[in-house]
Amino acid sequence: MKKKRMNRMDIKAYLNEKKELVDNALKRYFLDSGDNALKTLKESMRYSLFAGGKRLRPILCIAAAEALGGNQQDVLPVACALEFIHTYSLIHDDLPVMDDDDLRRGRPTNHKIFGDAIALLAGDGLLTDAFYVMSNDKNTDPVRLLKVINLIARAAGSNGMVGGQVADIQSEGKDVDINMLEFIHTHKTGALITASVTSGAILAGGTEEEIEAISGYGKSIGLAFQIADDILNVIGDPRLLGKSVGSDKEKHKITYPGIVGLERSKEIQRNLVEHAISFLDQFDSRANPLRGIAKYIIERKK
Amino acid sequence: MKKKRMNRMDIKAYLNEKKELVDNALKRYFLDSGDNALKTLKESMRYSLFAGGKRLRPILCIAAAEALGGNQQDVLPVACALEFIHTYSLIHDDLPVMDDDDLRRGRPTNHKIFGDAIALLAGDGLLTDAFYVMSNDKNTDPVRLLKVINLIARAAGSNGMVGGQVADIQSEGKDVDINMLEFIHTHKTGALITASVTSGAILAGGTEEEIEAISGYGKSIGLAFQIADDILNVIGDPRLLGKSVGSDKEKHKITYPGIVGLERSKEIQRNLVEHAISFLDQFDSRANPLRGIAKYIIERKK
Repeated sequence: MKKKRMNRMDIKAYLNEKKELVDNALKRYFLDSGDNALKTLKESMRYSLFAGGKRLRPILCIAAAEALGGNQQDVLPVACALEFIHTYSLIHDDLPVMDDDDLRRGRPTNHKIFGDAIALLAGDGLLTDAFYVMSNDKNTDPVRLLKVINLIARAAGSNGMVGGQVADIQSEGKDVDINMLEFIHTHKTGALITASVTSGAILAGGTEEEIEAISGYGKSIGLAFQIADDILNVIGDPRLLGKSVGSDKEKHKITYPGIVGLERSKEIQRNLVEHAISFLDQFDSRANPLRGIAKYIIERKK
Repeated sequence: MKKKRMNRMDIKAYLNEKKELVDNALKRYFLDSGDNALKTLKESMRYSLFAGGKRLRPILCIAAAEALGGNQQDVLPVACALEFIHTYSLIHDDLPVMDDDDLRRGRPTNHKIFGDAIALLAGDGLLTDAFYVMSNDKNTDPVRLLKVINLIARAAGSNGMVGGQVADIQSEGKDVDINMLEFIHTHKTGALITASVTSGAILAGGTEEEIEAISGYGKSIGLAFQIADDILNVIGDPRLLGKSVGSDKEKHKITYPGIVGLERSKEIQRNLVEHAISFLDQFDSRANPLRGIAKYIIERKK
């Protein structure tokens, strides 16, 4: 088995290439602006969907499928749906009743442009349409597709992302231990990231053992990703991040650097990435992008 | 073909019996309160789910399945999911950024008890979990189940319920014609009601022609239901409705009585019910509950 690691340039090129693929696929869902009465809603959905996201979740889905010999075209609808769900979560997070953020990726947040009511509904629309897009995929085996819809719905729902968000809100300003912090991170961000790679593995027809390995990889990078976010909020470059740093501390958000310190956070992060990559031992060089993404996640500047 | 119509008492007994069936099925999703960190979220979801809803959408799904010789147990997961979606839409509708309602069915609205952030997330949770519940149904043919998920996602999403809600918000205080009003009603309420009956027909294995007929029935009663709501908001009994009457007028909401007057609204409503029942001509007495529900919809007092 050839396991030549991707270097930094390789992984950047890979991410750019796949991002373009996903961007183009996403655009196709908005070609027909539809009924005039829906114009503002569609504009609002599009505004946040094309706000410069990294497309990490769709790319993870594609990379996992390709690691198992699958085809990127076959997983595109599910990959796009993952970005719909991620985008909805950002719109709702930014609302005044939640984090009350004015900026996201250097641009005004959705509700700053469209108002709170339309922003709320744009989020609802993206979440619901994600399930429309997935279930509308006629080229995938129905049993696999149902399994993936089930996995993603669980990861995004009350026992996943939404649950993590509630735990996060309820922890603000409280004395929270690392177990609760891990609960929040694994639910709020980790669950959907894990579901993204695992979906790719399922759609590519992976064996149970392969799906299990990819899921283990996903859990580790999901937590590493959120710790990296915590760290960037302390030491990141606001120009690259498109938002002010130090906002977590200001809002009394619970973070890894806040609880275990910056150095220990970086160590945990590195260990998680190593652990993630160890799950890929059974795969050949087609899993190199997954290996590269794991490293990229903690090296990124935004 | 025996087509004896159900009398008023029959349909009330039918609705009560099915409501109990649905209530018990819904309760089973909340038996395990789950992780302690999710306690408040689950409480908030449960609060609105068990706030005395009529369970009209689940019952329509069951009644359509039974009209085609299907079994009520087989459609229960989808029936429950429809109530999850309906409940999420009420929670979000009541939020201060939307209708800002303090009372729903005589009880404080969700955000009045749990706060705006948790209410928003309880809605998000119910919507997402609806797709978990449907896709988790192992006893249904995967192709039919996917078709139903697709239909419901479209009816609830940006081209359905969410779109209708946006059109409604944007029409407030404006001079709106009956075409726009019909657009709002058919999208905001009609789409999910139509999807509810049509889902039952698909799950019961109806032919294309049968599914088409049931869908036609759904479209007519969907609009009739919303006109009935408009009328109740003018002449209803606030004690039975659990909310104040006249609130539509106060909020400059566009309604049928507001545009075409009360008498013409009642006439349109009656015509729609007759039209709905005419779609059922090809079905035998097993479709009597659907016939009874069509009449009940415009005779109800709440």
